[in-house]
Amino acid sequence: MSHAQGQDSGLFEFRENGKGALYEQLAQSLRRAILDGQFVVGGKLPSSRLLARSLGISRNTVLAAYEVLSAEHLVVARGRKGTRLASHSHVNQSNVLPAIAPPPSRYVARVRKLPPTSLSSLRPQPAFDLHYGEAFADPRLLHSWRRKLSAAALRASPHYPDPCGFLPLRRAICDYLVRRRGISCTEKDVLIVAGTQQAIALIARVTLNEGDVAVIEDPHYQYARQALVAHGAHVIAVRTDDEGLVTSEVAPLDARLVYVTPSHQFPSGVVMSLKRRMELLQIVTQQRGYILEDDYDSEFLYRNGSLPALRTLAPSNRVIYVGTFSKTLFPSLRLGYIVCPTSLRDDLSAAKRLDDLGCPAIEQAALAAFIQSGQFDKHLRNSVEALRPVRDVLVEGLRRHCGDQVEIRGDHSGVHIVAWFKRMRHGHLDRLVQLACERGLGLYSIAPSYQARPPTPGLILGYAGLTAGGATRAMEIFGEAFAALGKDELPLSRPSANKIVA
Amino acid sequence: MSHAQGQDSGLFEFRENGKGALYEQLAQSLRRAILDGQFVVGGKLPSSRLLARSLGISRNTVLAAYEVLSAEHLVVARGRKGTRLASHSHVNQSNVLPAIAPPPSRYVARVRKLPPTSLSSLRPQPAFDLHYGEAFADPRLLHSWRRKLSAAALRASPHYPDPCGFLPLRRAICDYLVRRRGISCTEKDVLIVAGTQQAIALIARVTLNEGDVAVIEDPHYQYARQALVAHGAHVIAVRTDDEGLVTSEVAPLDARLVYVTPSHQFPSGVVMSLKRRMELLQIVTQQRGYILEDDYDSEFLYRNGSLPALRTLAPSNRVIYVGTFSKTLFPSLRLGYIVCPTSLRDDLSAAKRLDDLGCPAIEQAALAAFIQSGQFDKHLRNSVEALRPVRDVLVEGLRRHCGDQVEIRGDHSGVHIVAWFKRMRHGHLDRLVQLACERGLGLYSIAPSYQARPPTPGLILGYAGLTAGGATRAMEIFGEAFAALGKDELPLSRPSANKIVA
Repeated sequence: MSHAQGQDSGLFEFRENGKGALYEQLAQSLRRAILDGQFVVGGKLPSSRLLARSLGISRNTVLAAYEVLSAEHLVVARGRKGTRLASHSHVNQSNVLPAIAPPPSRYVARVRKLPPTSLSSLRPQPAFDLHYGEAFADPRLLHSWRRKLSAAALRASPHYPDPCGFLPLRRAICDYLVRRRGISCTEKDVLIVAGTQQAIALIARVTLNEGDVAVIEDPHYQYARQALVAHGAHVIAVRTDDEGLVTSEVAPLDARLVYVTPSHQFPSGVVMSLKRRMELLQIVTQQRGYILEDDYDSEFLYRNGSLPALRTLAPSNRVIYVGTFSKTLFPSLRLGYIVCPTSLRDDLSAAKRLDDLGCPAIEQAALAAFIQSGQFDKHLRNSVEALRPVRDVLVEGLRRHCGDQVEIRGDHSGVHIVAWFKRMRHGHLDRLVQLACERGLGLYSIAPSYQARPPTPGLILGYAGLTAGGATRAMEIFGEAFAALGKDELPLSRPSANKIVA
Repeated sequence: MSHAQGQDSGLFEFRENGKGALYEQLAQSLRRAILDGQFVVGGKLPSSRLLARSLGISRNTVLAAYEVLSAEHLVVARGRKGTRLASHSHVNQSNVLPAIAPPPSRYVARVRKLPPTSLSSLRPQPAFDLHYGEAFADPRLLHSWRRKLSAAALRASPHYPDPCGFLPLRRAICDYLVRRRGISCTEKDVLIVAGTQQAIALIARVTLNEGDVAVIEDPHYQYARQALVAHGAHVIAVRTDDEGLVTSEVAPLDARLVYVTPSHQFPSGVVMSLKRRMELLQIVTQQRGYILEDDYDSEFLYRNGSLPALRTLAPSNRVIYVGTFSKTLFPSLRLGYIVCPTSLRDDLSAAKRLDDLGCPAIEQAALAAFIQSGQFDKHLRNSVEALRPVRDVLVEGLRRHCGDQVEIRGDHSGVHIVAWFKRMRHGHLDRLVQLACERGLGLYSIAPSYQARPPTPGLILGYAGLTAGGATRAMEIFGEAFAALGKDELPLSRPSANKIVA
């Protein structure tokens, strides 16, 4: 309505904003005017008749607004004598003076320095996207999940949940871990968390003081690095090679926490050798630190034989094992788990309780039923069968278009591969990304996952969000872009602009 | 099976534990034995025939276990020459030496000093429980919720959620706040969090360094205090009176954060006067601090006229407003929200993203639909109508049994009341709690919510979990216990033992 818009009653400005009933809007404007000192304390408010007339609204609206203010003790209605301002409504007037904002906490100071991120939910989506971290969108899964959720809604307790997690879910995870990963643990060791991100945040709080050294791999998952930096850790990225983390470079650092992805180094795809695993365990034990073993995608295995988890090599000692359902189910579920070392079990549980009192009950009950019924295992088998041909299309397409110019890594497991272009300069790759983008294909450089720029340019190709048909089309576009690159004027080497986020 | 239990092969101990297939269990035992140095590095493992015979299991099981270890690179299969230990399997042997645990972080040192807690999910349940924080278990709600959840499961995005929260939910909360609380804000101000607990944890990170002063009310919500203490704040509990927080005692403290419950002081039930609200805003503005306004139960209002929220008195300036769905829907939902001051919007969003990347998508979508459809408002009206008679039964019962010995506070709103027993000693109250407990009624002293023991003993009576019939029976039991107390030998005054937790 426009009748009151911008009208100046001669007393105060009232601009309708469409939020709530008109009398509520008027009450809000009057409240603001009172608090800002536009009326004399102890003085009279305009009569309801006068105000109604000057604003061109009904008198009942004004009376209703005055009633709101009276109930709030901001004004005192005195019958025929009219409405007066309450005596204490002046106290706040110093608020009108410019107030200096409080200083940011050290946490905030660190967070403000972090690079900007673009989560997939906030990015524009190309027609074909090889972004890492997309959900494997199996419609069968969503239907099964819906049924489990619906059943759990009536069964789950509405009361405050167990902060450690729903007991049947923790038991189901124990069963799953011993069956699929050879990890033996009890439900007391398992803490349900809101995904890997919360696991990292809780582990940081429990193992690191501000300034303590935390080692991460280079390259690495950027959000892990950010969580550790935000916590105040002195984060050092140690290089990886074909055997994974170069442990000899970890030894001199006296790290309290070493964050690793041994099954499938993120994002390079390398498997940490058994020798390095043993060395890392020894270093960390000697230096009184912990290992955070992020086993984010070992469920997707395309060939036999995975190495034992660090947790298996040094049970319940110094290894904090973290698993997630973001890759196996879907990222917006926000459920994962920590297998705690015995010594940190109580501390990690307390940290979870103090952070959010526990994860939502219904989703936990649904997940427990989904695992117990065997549907989870079946879904994993289906996923591997569905994703294997997608991976094959990417690998074959890269080989066909690029020949011996490309080296492919990390294709034995997971939901992404890395393509290294040994004879390309970084500027070429940026141009390739741009040419693909113009053709509707989202390609992403691996460079932003590195602290030190990698020696050769590379792409990280996530394929969880694609069908085999989509992958075929994506590789056709890739071929066109790659061919166009050959004919193109090449720019000088410059830093990659796009970011990898999960 | 017992065939292998505790049998000593003469080579190593193998004890079946029932977790996973037999070959996996054997592989695990062998792995442990190898890592613990029970086999000579580079030496041979027993032949599969020999081991099978000595353990009384099939040779195929042993072969399968050896295959697992071979795939893990722990052993090398050399055909007829048998199976040898890999050369690097010795590195870990120093792990067998006693390793000193890493020092706990300062966070852990603080957390370990917190008093033990007993969340309702972990407590034994009496037949009638007046514990605060129980869910209002309306079966109609659970059925509506189930339908909303089921619909949302197919509609919500499986991808990583917006860390700030699902946009339609944030919009629905803005509409709700202006309509019901007169709070005007935009969706950009609203951050969806996993309940009040996470709100407090995030706000602590963003506003407080270790050692900074945070003021809480005395009495207070114990988990709020714990979250602030765990973060490292210097927490000072300032007394409250009939006008709420005694602001004159806040002024000299130079607090960075003041945590208050102005609508319905928790747990005393007092409403903070407008005068005190104004004073608090002025103090905090002058001292460059923030207010955390925890408006945890203002939806349950049994009489007209609530005072304006602090957020309304000082919009988007220094007030961080926190709301929750734990009371209005159910605690195991784990959803709440922060209305951020403009200056902290980005910092609080980043803190949420770094903590867990955002709340689960399906529950957020279900809640948005629940609010948008008008079902939430309807549910609130139903709840108030259902809870009003329950409250009335408690108030009348207390007056009938205790007469002028009892003073009732906080009964105008919320889901709990406080009963003060002015002529009773603390020891009497503990005895009353015990007598009620023996009769199947859970009563809870208010004392554990105080830092300084309250001058008179009091009970906090939560009634969200009761029907009117249940409340009637509860008050009958209360009457019996109260009468028995009169005849009883009274113990000397001693500190209350039971804890209030939500």
